[in-house]
Amino acid sequence: MLRLTGRAVAAEALGSALLVATVVGSGIMGERLAGGNLAVALLLNAVATGAILVVLITVLAPISGAHFNPVVSLAFALRRRLSPSALAAYIPAQIAGACLGALLANLMFDLSAIRISTHLRDGPSQLLSEVVATAGLLLTVFGAVHARPAATPALVGLYITAAYAFTASTSFANPAVTLARTLTDTFSGIAPASAPAFIGAQLAGLAVALPLLHWLLAEERPQHA
Amino acid sequence: MLRLTGRAVAAEALGSALLVATVVGSGIMGERLAGGNLAVALLLNAVATGAILVVLITVLAPISGAHFNPVVSLAFALRRRLSPSALAAYIPAQIAGACLGALLANLMFDLSAIRISTHLRDGPSQLLSEVVATAGLLLTVFGAVHARPAATPALVGLYITAAYAFTASTSFANPAVTLARTLTDTFSGIAPASAPAFIGAQLAGLAVALPLLHWLLAEERPQHA
Amino acid sequence: MLRLTGRAVAAEALGSALLVATVVGSGIMGERLAGGNLAVALLLNAVATGAILVVLITVLAPISGAHFNPVVSLAFALRRRLSPSALAAYIPAQIAGACLGALLANLMFDLSAIRISTHLRDGPSQLLSEVVATAGLLLTVFGAVHARPAATPALVGLYITAAYAFTASTSFANPAVTLARTLTDTFSGIAPASAPAFIGAQLAGLAVALPLLHWLLAEERPQHA
Amino acid sequence: MLRLTGRAVAAEALGSALLVATVVGSGIMGERLAGGNLAVALLLNAVATGAILVVLITVLAPISGAHFNPVVSLAFALRRRLSPSALAAYIPAQIAGACLGALLANLMFDLSAIRISTHLRDGPSQLLSEVVATAGLLLTVFGAVHARPAATPALVGLYITAAYAFTASTSFANPAVTLARTLTDTFSGIAPASAPAFIGAQLAGLAVALPLLHWLLAEERPQHA
Repeated sequence: MLRLTGRAVAAEALGSALLVATVVGSGIMGERLAGGNLAVALLLNAVATGAILVVLITVLAPISGAHFNPVVSLAFALRRRLSPSALAAYIPAQIAGACLGALLANLMFDLSAIRISTHLRDGPSQLLSEVVATAGLLLTVFGAVHARPAATPALVGLYITAAYAFTASTSFANPAVTLARTLTDTFSGIAPASAPAFIGAQLAGLAVALPLLHWLLAEERPQHA
Repeated sequence: MLRLTGRAVAAEALGSALLVATVVGSGIMGERLAGGNLAVALLLNAVATGAILVVLITVLAPISGAHFNPVVSLAFALRRRLSPSALAAYIPAQIAGACLGALLANLMFDLSAIRISTHLRDGPSQLLSEVVATAGLLLTVFGAVHARPAATPALVGLYITAAYAFTASTSFANPAVTLARTLTDTFSGIAPASAPAFIGAQLAGLAVALPLLHWLLAEERPQHA
Repeated sequence: MLRLTGRAVAAEALGSALLVATVVGSGIMGERLAGGNLAVALLLNAVATGAILVVLITVLAPISGAHFNPVVSLAFALRRRLSPSALAAYIPAQIAGACLGALLANLMFDLSAIRISTHLRDGPSQLLSEVVATAGLLLTVFGAVHARPAATPALVGLYITAAYAFTASTSFANPAVTLARTLTDTFSGIAPASAPAFIGAQLAGLAVALPLLHWLLAEERPQHA
Repeated sequence: MLRLTGRAVAAEALGSALLVATVVGSGIMGERLAGGNLAVALLLNAVATGAILVVLITVLAPISGAHFNPVVSLAFALRRRLSPSALAAYIPAQIAGACLGALLANLMFDLSAIRISTHLRDGPSQLLSEVVATAGLLLTVFGAVHARPAATPALVGLYITAAYAFTASTSFANPAVTLARTLTDTFSGIAPASAPAFIGAQLAGLAVALPLLHWLLAEERPQHA
């Protein structure tokens, strides 16, 4: 178990900020340049986000575990690999960092620092998408830690790249990122009215995934180094 | 040889489900957003599928071998690396999981859970494509296991990404996935009338590949770890 | 130094065939689907070719060294890592395999098995592109073998993906592939009248690269495993 | 600390040249083929640049450290991992190599060897983008060296691919590359009038990043090999 240090909390905030700056910034860039072909915008968004996740997780994991996501931190806490005090410190740092990242992206693209999104993302298929996206993310994280820990950064990056495309919600799968994305009225934004149900669906994904992972990953020994 | 466990069968079903959810879901996403430029839709489809394969194979291989494909399981059985009883348990799990994945993708994109595809994929060039796609997949799997086992997940993901583009059929190369893709009337669907010939061509790919692999990979020792 | 075996010669032919089938096939797929946006076609072509190269080199390198390219084999021979008899056996196998790959791609896409390309690729900027592309490929291959041998397949795949985009010729960099691409009148074809100058430029790239590599890579010891 | 050799200086020049040839060349290719959908051009540019960086850093790092960037060399010097004399030799080699790379790209695409860019890139959001891009690059480089040195080439390539998309400036993050890009009046060019502020912003990124990295990376031990 990692020790709770100021550096760890700072690493969570920094990683969350750069993650959201990438999600929001590459969304703006894609939308501006794609001339209406939003499949290209989504691909640019997905490739950029996947790539930065590999970097941020590799570099910051030794310091904080590199969760950048309250659901992931909660799952580690429930599996007794993160202390309650660390969980309590990580979550606000993740939210604050994520919000700063959205501001930074807005400013880099010459927009107001904060402009609340008007992009409603509602309906059962959006929420089902978030349940699946979050459960899949937890399978990826804990499966990687179990089967091949050194591959965790690459696998999370690849999972998120795929999940942008295979879920109708483009896979938020992260409450801190969901809150931060209410602060930008651009391609990747989400209206505040849609955020609570998204976060609820993400927690439902956690509830679905944990017992499955507990059973699936118990006792097995990995075959590869 | 892996032991046959309930977990192994569940891992085959889960992996097949997430694989098909990605194939079908990212196909729908690409088609909806691409505005007629289907090369972008195909690229999104190919990148998402390749990425999720790396994740699923890495995470589930220690539990079941991570075949997600009756032709691959049959090839392992014929090479005496999978028991007949495991083969008999894997194939229905792969088919059931794959079909559930198609349903899940349909629901995530707000479509009827099942809608039979009307997309005919016929003619000798389609079948030749499936023979080549399947033989190439088996070369990739067994060549990787032989030359550098730890690279198997990445190599299968890269192969499928390429095969989407270089075969006219977009490379199904998997009977369970073929059956499941009859259940969605979207970009990646296949009409039931076209499925038997596809599956026959995939088995022909196995028949072509096995003797070649037997000769090519015999006795050689890999140079790299 | 690898022993010259029938398997090695077959591996060179097989790898060259699948490489060209990917180059030609993904070119046809991209051109057909891209609806005039040829940047997407080129990206699909580049990603597919890079991906298949990683697979083919990893899997076949233990058997033949996985050159699939007369210029690379000639460079290994000149650096005394391939015997003259192996060189004499490899080159015809590479050419024959590459031509079969072009036929296979034509047939998979429902075209005549052979249709001579009418795509002229002429002028000094095309030839300069081939000199640079080939010299860069040799820097990649021998630099990788020197600095981190296990990364060679990935580095060659990444180099070719980049070189599709940064050279005006889309980086043939391979005489066997050049000859084979005269046999398809599609996106990746080259008219026979343009082929000799391309091959000459590729040999010029070899002449530029070898002394540079001899000096640059001599005596240095790699820092990483 | 690496010894200062003629080979090291040549490696910096060669790597900088091929880096800029890729940035400029793939920019021209993308713009010519994309038919107005510049998101595809940017994606091609980003993928090609990221890919060539992985190759060049892996291959040339044992010889020179593979900086190709005066800000990176300056940061290594300030952290006492590069001698002042090496710094003084590297910077002109990087600038000269980068400029030669721009010329080479222009010539490969049948343009005048030098044509000064008229592309103004001005305003506070562009400069903020360069501060963020450069600070993020230094976090990537030193974080990678600290957490997992063998992954440095891949992480830098992934970071730059992402940074093309998430910063409004497309992430120059390199004074030598900035100067060289004034020499091409194409997609990736920058007008000379905009270059000094870009370089100033890059140095500001260094000033922001160094104290943060000093604190964040001190004393921690990496968890992975």
